[in-house]
Amino acid sequence: MTRIDRREADQMRRFKITKYFQKYPAGSVLIETGNTKVICAASIQDGVPPFLRGNGIGWLNAEYSLLPSSTLTRSQREATRGRQNGRTQEIQRLIGRCLRSVMDFKALGERTITIDCDVIQADGGTRTASITGAFVALALALDTIYDPKKPFPLKDFLAAVSVGLSKENKPILDLCYDEDSTAVADMNIVMTGNGEFVEIQGTGEKHPFTHKQFSQMLSFAEKGIDELISYQKDILGNDLVWKIGRIP
Amino acid sequence: MTRIDRREADQMRRFKITKYFQKYPAGSVLIETGNTKVICAASIQDGVPPFLRGNGIGWLNAEYSLLPSSTLTRSQREATRGRQNGRTQEIQRLIGRCLRSVMDFKALGERTITIDCDVIQADGGTRTASITGAFVALALALDTIYDPKKPFPLKDFLAAVSVGLSKENKPILDLCYDEDSTAVADMNIVMTGNGEFVEIQGTGEKHPFTHKQFSQMLSFAEKGIDELISYQKDILGNDLVWKIGRIP
Amino acid sequence: MTRIDRREADQMRRFKITKYFQKYPAGSVLIETGNTKVICAASIQDGVPPFLRGNGIGWLNAEYSLLPSSTLTRSQREATRGRQNGRTQEIQRLIGRCLRSVMDFKALGERTITIDCDVIQADGGTRTASITGAFVALALALDTIYDPKKPFPLKDFLAAVSVGLSKENKPILDLCYDEDSTAVADMNIVMTGNGEFVEIQGTGEKHPFTHKQFSQMLSFAEKGIDELISYQKDILGNDLVWKIGRIP
Amino acid sequence: MTRIDRREADQMRRFKITKYFQKYPAGSVLIETGNTKVICAASIQDGVPPFLRGNGIGWLNAEYSLLPSSTLTRSQREATRGRQNGRTQEIQRLIGRCLRSVMDFKALGERTITIDCDVIQADGGTRTASITGAFVALALALDTIYDPKKPFPLKDFLAAVSVGLSKENKPILDLCYDEDSTAVADMNIVMTGNGEFVEIQGTGEKHPFTHKQFSQMLSFAEKGIDELISYQKDILGNDLVWKIGRIP
Amino acid sequence: MTRIDRREADQMRRFKITKYFQKYPAGSVLIETGNTKVICAASIQDGVPPFLRGNGIGWLNAEYSLLPSSTLTRSQREATRGRQNGRTQEIQRLIGRCLRSVMDFKALGERTITIDCDVIQADGGTRTASITGAFVALALALDTIYDPKKPFPLKDFLAAVSVGLSKENKPILDLCYDEDSTAVADMNIVMTGNGEFVEIQGTGEKHPFTHKQFSQMLSFAEKGIDELISYQKDILGNDLVWKIGRIP
Amino acid sequence: MTRIDRREADQMRRFKITKYFQKYPAGSVLIETGNTKVICAASIQDGVPPFLRGNGIGWLNAEYSLLPSSTLTRSQREATRGRQNGRTQEIQRLIGRCLRSVMDFKALGERTITIDCDVIQADGGTRTASITGAFVALALALDTIYDPKKPFPLKDFLAAVSVGLSKENKPILDLCYDEDSTAVADMNIVMTGNGEFVEIQGTGEKHPFTHKQFSQMLSFAEKGIDELISYQKDILGNDLVWKIGRIP
Repeated sequence: MTRIDRREADQMRRFKITKYFQKYPAGSVLIETGNTKVICAASIQDGVPPFLRGNGIGWLNAEYSLLPSSTLTRSQREATRGRQNGRTQEIQRLIGRCLRSVMDFKALGERTITIDCDVIQADGGTRTASITGAFVALALALDTIYDPKKPFPLKDFLAAVSVGLSKENKPILDLCYDEDSTAVADMNIVMTGNGEFVEIQGTGEKHPFTHKQFSQMLSFAEKGIDELISYQKDILGNDLVWKIGRIP
Repeated sequence: MTRIDRREADQMRRFKITKYFQKYPAGSVLIETGNTKVICAASIQDGVPPFLRGNGIGWLNAEYSLLPSSTLTRSQREATRGRQNGRTQEIQRLIGRCLRSVMDFKALGERTITIDCDVIQADGGTRTASITGAFVALALALDTIYDPKKPFPLKDFLAAVSVGLSKENKPILDLCYDEDSTAVADMNIVMTGNGEFVEIQGTGEKHPFTHKQFSQMLSFAEKGIDELISYQKDILGNDLVWKIGRIP
Repeated sequence: MTRIDRREADQMRRFKITKYFQKYPAGSVLIETGNTKVICAASIQDGVPPFLRGNGIGWLNAEYSLLPSSTLTRSQREATRGRQNGRTQEIQRLIGRCLRSVMDFKALGERTITIDCDVIQADGGTRTASITGAFVALALALDTIYDPKKPFPLKDFLAAVSVGLSKENKPILDLCYDEDSTAVADMNIVMTGNGEFVEIQGTGEKHPFTHKQFSQMLSFAEKGIDELISYQKDILGNDLVWKIGRIP
Repeated sequence: MTRIDRREADQMRRFKITKYFQKYPAGSVLIETGNTKVICAASIQDGVPPFLRGNGIGWLNAEYSLLPSSTLTRSQREATRGRQNGRTQEIQRLIGRCLRSVMDFKALGERTITIDCDVIQADGGTRTASITGAFVALALALDTIYDPKKPFPLKDFLAAVSVGLSKENKPILDLCYDEDSTAVADMNIVMTGNGEFVEIQGTGEKHPFTHKQFSQMLSFAEKGIDELISYQKDILGNDLVWKIGRIP
Repeated sequence: MTRIDRREADQMRRFKITKYFQKYPAGSVLIETGNTKVICAASIQDGVPPFLRGNGIGWLNAEYSLLPSSTLTRSQREATRGRQNGRTQEIQRLIGRCLRSVMDFKALGERTITIDCDVIQADGGTRTASITGAFVALALALDTIYDPKKPFPLKDFLAAVSVGLSKENKPILDLCYDEDSTAVADMNIVMTGNGEFVEIQGTGEKHPFTHKQFSQMLSFAEKGIDELISYQKDILGNDLVWKIGRIP
Repeated sequence: MTRIDRREADQMRRFKITKYFQKYPAGSVLIETGNTKVICAASIQDGVPPFLRGNGIGWLNAEYSLLPSSTLTRSQREATRGRQNGRTQEIQRLIGRCLRSVMDFKALGERTITIDCDVIQADGGTRTASITGAFVALALALDTIYDPKKPFPLKDFLAAVSVGLSKENKPILDLCYDEDSTAVADMNIVMTGNGEFVEIQGTGEKHPFTHKQFSQMLSFAEKGIDELISYQKDILGNDLVWKIGRIP
């Protein structure tokens, strides 16, 4: 089996994170993974939704969108259609849930963070790139309100990657769009810097998969996430690496 | 650790499927799992959506809803709100994807099946009960259009179960609502009669989980699904068991 | 003239009310009238809508829905369509208006009652079955908050029935779907235990009707409602019969 | 009992119909009943909705709206809210149903008529004024496509009036807004030129009413409708009076 | 070049404003310009939107709508479609912006004015007629709350007119629908009593226009607006002419 | 008067257009004007909307959106709100109208072009930047389907700029956000390569403006547009400059 772009089965595409991509949000990055490009922004607002008010704890929400021009054939704008489709809602619920798993909302206090992931080019893996990039935007944003007398509101690092079974039924890491559309099974794995699982989402709509295949995909994912978290540490720098998980 | 209802950690709640619960749909059941009750119906319609037309293959869609009176405190009716929320859409996408994984759409021909899962009482595990019950409704519906010269349009059995980590961080099978709301991790597993995975969805929003915890949950799920598929076979009877997976 | 199901012109279909059908709402019944089956639930919530606040009086609202699988051919889910259609809104306005006519909102105090009527099988007469069943669910719900120092918040019994003119232009009581779809005129009558009218809705879209035909239909309706209210009294029991209308 | 505007209990307010109020629709009138003013227009379009196509028969639909500035305190524009409320839908369903009851759709052929009733001043009785006025607009519109070799597509005259029980529990005819808002019961009656009933809608939300009260209200309504149909005949002129109901 | 209705190139259609057209709003007029007819109403409500609260200043909003029966071929009702289209929103934003430009919101105090422009017949120039008529309705409404110790809340007169380039590329004033639909360029000009510009909106979708053509159109517009403002002064009377712009 | 960023009154901000910014659309650019950044894409699809079918002519539509993270304080996502607001609709109608004014739709044939303008950073002038950038994306897209036997489907160049009156009442060119929010008047001018006007939109909501001020603003705009069109020619290159407006 040779992959479309001649990568090894367990090889990631080239990835790159550009910090401070936008001027106004508290944190903002552009993440590129192969041809997939996503703008991730983190905005901070005082106050929390009604159901949390008065408890001294914060909240985080995520929104996700594809620019109509980001896909192979233009996709319809959801604001024109008047509602977000099921896929969009499922992805933004996933992004929010994952980022919340590493947040210390007590340390954040009564503030709400909104994560925006806007895909400007979509070549597979947009949801995992969104999580990996949004984590960096979130760390940058939280640094702007850091209070050394409190724990840093992020408890650990977080990154995500996709794995799957190619049409030849072989495990592969970090699927591009062409691989994804022919894969027989498809998984998204989200892990912390500590090597624990936050999300495992595997689906075999075209073909169910065995326990053994599942284990192989999982170890490919662990390798990919290791590389991503190393890179996040490089890009965020020693100071933030030291702060993340810190309890004064 | 003692469970709220004194079950063993790897013990399912009592479950029961009543066939032909409604008069009009091609297939219809009431599934009860503990206090969770779901009406599952399968309707068959000639023709397929435009993107499939003319290929001789069929399609299946699922819809899911909670009756407002099904929950501990009344939930708002989605038709009144004017849109389905993200959770609803995510669940109905899951149900559809799982049932499609065991369908032979060529054998079905240009027909569309709509699965309706309407929860009349919600005490945890409504999405897994929906999948397990809908499979039976689907089998009954397909039997009404069975053509012995073609493969039966279902390739295998299918059932689903939830597993999780209790607040004491112990694996437990088939969570009721009280367990679910305090669990630190939560998984839904969908498997075929052949013991392969169709979906693995695990999330550790409250606490990430380790590889070892994950493996324990997975083996609990396999036990539960075995019991459910045995029961599906009993309820459907020898004739349908013989038909499912049959290729003439 | 012989009716489809060999009933006399002034004969009701068999009807049955199962109390406590659901676990969570304050009151809940399943009402069956021939093949028509409706789940009726009454939920009580503290507080009232803004326009009533501070007057010490309560409110009651009703919602109505057909399960997609309840009809001869599957109906589209209103939450998917994004809005309730005109028929649904008209019916739920009717149900709310009728139940409010026998409520003593001062005795209720600043509470809001929500009635949910969810049709699980529709064979004609779903709106009248909803009113008759919802009355029982409402009585059960109000009993849970009964304060003997105040009047019971229900002033009288209430039931509803349909009458019409068959295609042979003869009056008939309690139309099933097949009769309803060929009837030349169609009426819904709602009356109190005291024999007074709460609603009279007659329509002759296919053919206008005379004063005399109208009177015959009315007396058929009175007969049907008598039988329904007797049954409501049986099912609710002496204690509640004594409470309804009671002023301490 | 003296009425607010010193009318007798069985006296109509002054009414007036202005033909050809708008330039573009096939038929258009302004109807005034006391201070209530409604523009009624009838537009004719070739073709029918899909469910009727190919049968050679036509269709009629009605829409109803209150100008925001038509009510005592400004009402919210439904186009701004994004949906029509239940009251609006109920009224336009009523108007359509009543007008359809006197139509000969076979004589109309495959055409669709749209009735627009736009209330520019609302002082009670807008739905009955809409029906009475729309009948005249409809007759004018049908005259523009009259084919003497076919029956005229209107079979009979049609008018509507409201009756009620005043707060003193006395029957009154043609309620203005102030009477309507304090009435204990409220009915809308729609009748043909032939003296038959098309709709009877009576509701006693504030207080149930007796059989005797109901009969009194009905005879008041019959008196009012007589006057309205006489006036319609005057206004439409001998030629149209001769055509309505004519079969060549 | 001869115009369809034989007017001179710089001649307005006949226009007329009827004051107090509706009974309930604080101010209301019917404006007629040729066959174009618009009901303009101004309603006053205590309080302002949240973003202005507590500053002692008021606000004004405008809404615009075409009756379905107002156009050559019936237009779809926006409340039925479930949303206002882009043209409607653009027009009501324009009307609101223009009227706000001559308001003294400090003199108004914390009140909100809603302007409703409902077109009952549309023969070109509905947006400019709306502005010209709404100004008069607004002046009438403000007069009802006039406090002589404060400035009158209107600082100056305001009127609007359309100009364009005919299909022969000649400037024309006050286009009727037939002229508008064949014009190569189209402008709407809004000016104050003082001869200053509030809005200039010119568009050459069919053909770009030169600087010189633009100047000619502008002087035609100035002539038309002069005539309209003279008429507004006549219709409002000396007392209101004296109040508008007055500072005590 | 000194401008915030020390520019001369008639000086543009630095602008830059990056071609081929996205991989999938037929034409795509990133336009930067000061801190304003917009992605403009042009997609080509076979076929036209129903109202144009069968005439051999094409169509062009534009859509516009602000990323939530593009603004000083995060703006709500329109897909979440469920509808586009009035400002968005007004801007996308403007962009479409302007680009259509220089299109030769006969040369295009039965194809539809969709322009997407997605603002990733908003510092004033997003609508004019969208038009200027979208023109370049459109030229690139049309080049991919160029048929030398037909006219090139673009008849002329097109660019847009904003001008206004500063809070000191002085004309200024190309307003940044801070200038825009304090300006007393505000205009957007769109012109062709030939020096003719396509749109003039001037508004004096805060303060009406005189004829003289208007003329000064217009000449500033002409200067700015000259610079933009020169730059468009540089960026598109000789080959496309030669094609635009070419008739074989």
